[in-house]
Amino acid sequence: MSAPKFQRLVRFENPNGKIYYGELGLEHAATEQDLIGSSVAIYKGLSPWAEDFKLTSQKEKIAAVLCPLANVPLFECIGLNYRKHVEEAGFPKEKYPTVFTKPPDALAGPYEDILVHEECQLMDYEAELCFIIERDCKNITTDEEALSCVFGYTAGNDVSSRFWQMPERSGNQHGTGKWYDKFAPIGPTIVNATAVHKSPNGLSIKTFVNGELRQDARTDDLIFDVPTIIRHLTRGKTLRQGTIIMTGTPGGVAAFMKPPQWLKDNDIVEVEIEKIGRTRNRIVLQ
Amino acid sequence: MSAPKFQRLVRFENPNGKIYYGELGLEHAATEQDLIGSSVAIYKGLSPWAEDFKLTSQKEKIAAVLCPLANVPLFECIGLNYRKHVEEAGFPKEKYPTVFTKPPDALAGPYEDILVHEECQLMDYEAELCFIIERDCKNITTDEEALSCVFGYTAGNDVSSRFWQMPERSGNQHGTGKWYDKFAPIGPTIVNATAVHKSPNGLSIKTFVNGELRQDARTDDLIFDVPTIIRHLTRGKTLRQGTIIMTGTPGGVAAFMKPPQWLKDNDIVEVEIEKIGRTRNRIVLQ
Repeated sequence: MSAPKFQRLVRFENPNGKIYYGELGLEHAATEQDLIGSSVAIYKGLSPWAEDFKLTSQKEKIAAVLCPLANVPLFECIGLNYRKHVEEAGFPKEKYPTVFTKPPDALAGPYEDILVHEECQLMDYEAELCFIIERDCKNITTDEEALSCVFGYTAGNDVSSRFWQMPERSGNQHGTGKWYDKFAPIGPTIVNATAVHKSPNGLSIKTFVNGELRQDARTDDLIFDVPTIIRHLTRGKTLRQGTIIMTGTPGGVAAFMKPPQWLKDNDIVEVEIEKIGRTRNRIVLQ
Repeated sequence: MSAPKFQRLVRFENPNGKIYYGELGLEHAATEQDLIGSSVAIYKGLSPWAEDFKLTSQKEKIAAVLCPLANVPLFECIGLNYRKHVEEAGFPKEKYPTVFTKPPDALAGPYEDILVHEECQLMDYEAELCFIIERDCKNITTDEEALSCVFGYTAGNDVSSRFWQMPERSGNQHGTGKWYDKFAPIGPTIVNATAVHKSPNGLSIKTFVNGELRQDARTDDLIFDVPTIIRHLTRGKTLRQGTIIMTGTPGGVAAFMKPPQWLKDNDIVEVEIEKIGRTRNRIVLQ
């Protein structure tokens, strides 16, 4: 296996509004306040897929943290992939991953406001470990091949309108509650795949709403692991470079609290994943 | 309303392998054998979205008919949208369209072979009237606005592996049976929207398998019409230029024949829609 191209990437604007990818290293804390004002070594170019995407000796100061990818071809999302979430939802255990998509316009940055259309009610959060596909791939059959397709990991929130997700409005298609613009904030960093694959007990994954801990799990509770997901998604099917796979959410979503604690206007939702950092998005009901 | 930019487009290669968009007019028959060898006036450029996409006085001969769009951002597909198909499937009537997606790599030309992965079993066809989004649009509320977003119509086959679509393998997500490369052949032409909107009784839509008529309906049996679909798909959500919306299939699919008549290796599936023409794809089981 070749050495990773990076340790942990952050995409940002410097004080003059110029955009860069920077190398954060694995030790730097990664909340918004930790990141703003830090100086980091930058990479050449703005495409992590480019051959000449290489670390330089130049340093730049972070003035604003951007979405770690400027755009994505598609989100492929796994539903019901944590044992505890499947139990709270009362769903049967499936033999294959349950998959739906979010369109490219769902992409949002780690600290962006999420503007919610007035007809999107019963708003919920879903903290998710996300992985990014490094190169176009198809018909992957082995674990080793599968893991070699993973560029890195980021944190994501599969923002959901349970009103539209209900079977009588969606015909049981999960995407209907989740396809809205900016309903997939990710970030704040991309950590290299090896750092995650070497974590034997998975990573801690948490959601806070206005500072209150709502989801608290470890990614080793995943039912379908990364190679299983990649095999399923590349059977006769091309997964494109830059595709984000959201691997499902653990227990603790608003919908299954008693009574449900739907997101309110101005609520702050934070998703924190060990090694990756913490997103922080304000929900703006319109 | 401005005059349509075109009557009926065909994208093709001339005998030297150069690619063009040509104007076929509304009267020309549009099976593969009618099209090959015809000379048509060509448009300037290769993007129907470009400002200067205009008919020229130059004519070129059609040597091979290509997919009418070189690429698409996404397919948004409506399930269970013909009254008779909903009845044969035994599904309840929904208040909103049931929507799933096919990824951009599902795109195939009107006469391409469809290579089917060996694990995709119980193969089926779904003839569908497809419309193409002319410009990025969001939060469309009126019928008039909605219809102004439609560039034109084409015919499509929502090729489906019922094995993967079954609830126990898909978690009820229709996309799982339909997301494979080349599982969305479209064509052979794009007819201007006005010509379709002025057809008071809809268009005849048919499927033939090895020449045998399997589906035979009219598009005025659609439960959710084009403006209703566009309103639903743009609520808080951007529909991008070039997106193809597949509007659902009528009764007569292989799965609901008694016994089911699954597609076999080398079967020829033809989808014919009035005014648009006839696609013809060979199913190649691997």
